[in-house]
Amino acid sequence: MSRILAHYDVAAPAAEIEARAAALALEQSIEMPLDAVTSDHVRREVVASVERVEWIEPAGGEGSDAGGGAGPETHRVVLGLAPATMVRADGTAEIGQLVNMAFGNCSLQDDVTLVDLEIPAGLLTAWPGPRFGLDGLRDRVGAAGERRALTMTALKPQGLPPAELAALAATFARAGLDIVKDDHGIADQGAAPFAARVAACQRAISDANAATGGHTVYAPSLSGGPRQLAEQARIVADQGVGMVLACPMLMGLPTFDELVRHELACPVVAHPAFGGAGRMAPPLLLGRLFRLLGADATIFPNHGGRFSYSPAACARLAEVALEPWGHLRPCAPVPAGGMTVDRVPEMLEFYGPDVILLIGGGLLSAGAELEARARQFAARVRSLEVPIP
Amino acid sequence: MSRILAHYDVAAPAAEIEARAAALALEQSIEMPLDAVTSDHVRREVVASVERVEWIEPAGGEGSDAGGGAGPETHRVVLGLAPATMVRADGTAEIGQLVNMAFGNCSLQDDVTLVDLEIPAGLLTAWPGPRFGLDGLRDRVGAAGERRALTMTALKPQGLPPAELAALAATFARAGLDIVKDDHGIADQGAAPFAARVAACQRAISDANAATGGHTVYAPSLSGGPRQLAEQARIVADQGVGMVLACPMLMGLPTFDELVRHELACPVVAHPAFGGAGRMAPPLLLGRLFRLLGADATIFPNHGGRFSYSPAACARLAEVALEPWGHLRPCAPVPAGGMTVDRVPEMLEFYGPDVILLIGGGLLSAGAELEARARQFAARVRSLEVPIP
Repeated sequence: MSRILAHYDVAAPAAEIEARAAALALEQSIEMPLDAVTSDHVRREVVASVERVEWIEPAGGEGSDAGGGAGPETHRVVLGLAPATMVRADGTAEIGQLVNMAFGNCSLQDDVTLVDLEIPAGLLTAWPGPRFGLDGLRDRVGAAGERRALTMTALKPQGLPPAELAALAATFARAGLDIVKDDHGIADQGAAPFAARVAACQRAISDANAATGGHTVYAPSLSGGPRQLAEQARIVADQGVGMVLACPMLMGLPTFDELVRHELACPVVAHPAFGGAGRMAPPLLLGRLFRLLGADATIFPNHGGRFSYSPAACARLAEVALEPWGHLRPCAPVPAGGMTVDRVPEMLEFYGPDVILLIGGGLLSAGAELEARARQFAARVRSLEVPIP
Repeated sequence: MSRILAHYDVAAPAAEIEARAAALALEQSIEMPLDAVTSDHVRREVVASVERVEWIEPAGGEGSDAGGGAGPETHRVVLGLAPATMVRADGTAEIGQLVNMAFGNCSLQDDVTLVDLEIPAGLLTAWPGPRFGLDGLRDRVGAAGERRALTMTALKPQGLPPAELAALAATFARAGLDIVKDDHGIADQGAAPFAARVAACQRAISDANAATGGHTVYAPSLSGGPRQLAEQARIVADQGVGMVLACPMLMGLPTFDELVRHELACPVVAHPAFGGAGRMAPPLLLGRLFRLLGADATIFPNHGGRFSYSPAACARLAEVALEPWGHLRPCAPVPAGGMTVDRVPEMLEFYGPDVILLIGGGLLSAGAELEARARQFAARVRSLEVPIP
């Protein structure tokens, strides 16, 4: 099987980068001096290889002495990680080992950023990817066959009782929003325990749909350890809930992987909470890895909001989530974080129709005009002519 | 119940820091404009409070204009997180929610580092802490009542078959090392599947102990999602294994929490892999949080090795792991990462006797002299007079 190519940005002087790359290859595979390895098999099939080392133009673009200044410069180092480090005897693979080999120890080293992973075709089939994907989400909200952007909002604030969250949910459903998710801070707190909240909100949305003929879907937020997650998945199924929200980095990637494979029959929206993790590029973590494990949609901080992602990073993240990738269905990009209805035309211009727009606080700030503003959000997204790239 | 105090370093100009702190308090609680919150209960009991904002002397120590320069300066912001955001109706608490409220969204913001968490006494009892602790580990390796440093090494490289790993384990046990762990890269790979490897290594160590009268303990590395972890914990119990290694950030903190509470009857050594996570201070993550969830020992990169932690950060991490903290037993600090037998006196001088020294590659590089060097490591740690702070 071909190797997994892990792309890193490494800050090191040009004179030291070859040695630094070789050390990184040992760190991310056998974690011991190569001299002390006596097994030919280990040297050939386990130790990571240095595939490429390239000098990178600094982001600022200023001229720079690539030839050997003493100060650190950025280099792109590509390692070849051996499949044998992450594949079981039965041929299945461990996501925890993929991340461990790519970024376990070097996440603790300040000079290394993990930028991308190329997974060979033979290994890619080890993971399911989105089971529904963007078109599956469109089906679920009554937009089958339409190539239009979808709308999403969030129930908040946490601390409200189930009846008040359910009333909010009903308002959003009446306004015609496609997806109403829990705020990612809503878990199993005393104010609105999961079972009571999910039952109330799902009933409110079903009733509103029945009244309007709409297809709004509720996505409650899952939280906790494996036992609690399994119980919440059971409640989701029992209540006929059509979608869930999950935070893969909070629950742990291997736990998210098992949850999708074994506990959930409905689509999954991934939330990036706790995902600032140690210098992994956002397009890799939130775009590629969450999609690999089966996120049908991935929420990320849009540029120009409360977070500092650049337009280029956002465009790349959306591209990675959607582009053809082996057997994996497209994962819907969900730019969010301080968005407003006023920004809808600009965002659709930027992302095109293959997107879910998420506006939370920007609706709630309308106060008594909440339903009107939500309706405006839904209508504007449905009516705008969006250029298809 | 008192609030959880979350300490952040925030890079912002002095003129903007009060507004930035207020925005952070909303981001890390209700994630919506305060104006749009109509519930008094939410305003009082759910929204995070800004407890303190202080200007911090830059690490370089150079004089600086604290009064309002336009450039970003670092401020310490202390938020009061509400217990209601993480406590269930039955009074138990979610570790995922503690981390989510402290660092969920702001882990994605470049200007914020989470430096520390102060957990009030009433909430602290929600977590077990180390079930054995440093003294429990000393008991297990036949050093009950001795206030001495312990020794640890690692089986590696991954890729060796069980018989060769077991032979290495026997060598280390004969040499008198206290703890022999799997390398954290060893999982359930085809070369040495978990069940076969653990049985072989445990038998090798038990046999060596029987021959020498020693008390070496084997700590295999657990990996995978909840189902695989539960199966591995069962094998550990069946084989009479005395300790395990786990990577809390790879498996996810809520999954680690459940593993310790429900699956494991033996002590746990925590490994920091994937722990570079988004600007959380190492003493907080590897010292405080891993201890909170029940790590009996915590491995971290020692200064002067392959990682860039400063002596001050290492000293603080060890202090946080050991210092009195509610009902929690001390968690043994395990400095590691490129250590050698030559550094033993200096490390014991630095850390004192309440420490576990971990040397892996530094032993394996001895080649044919492996057992002699391991014996020297064990003997040196046992014989050195170490000042008790």
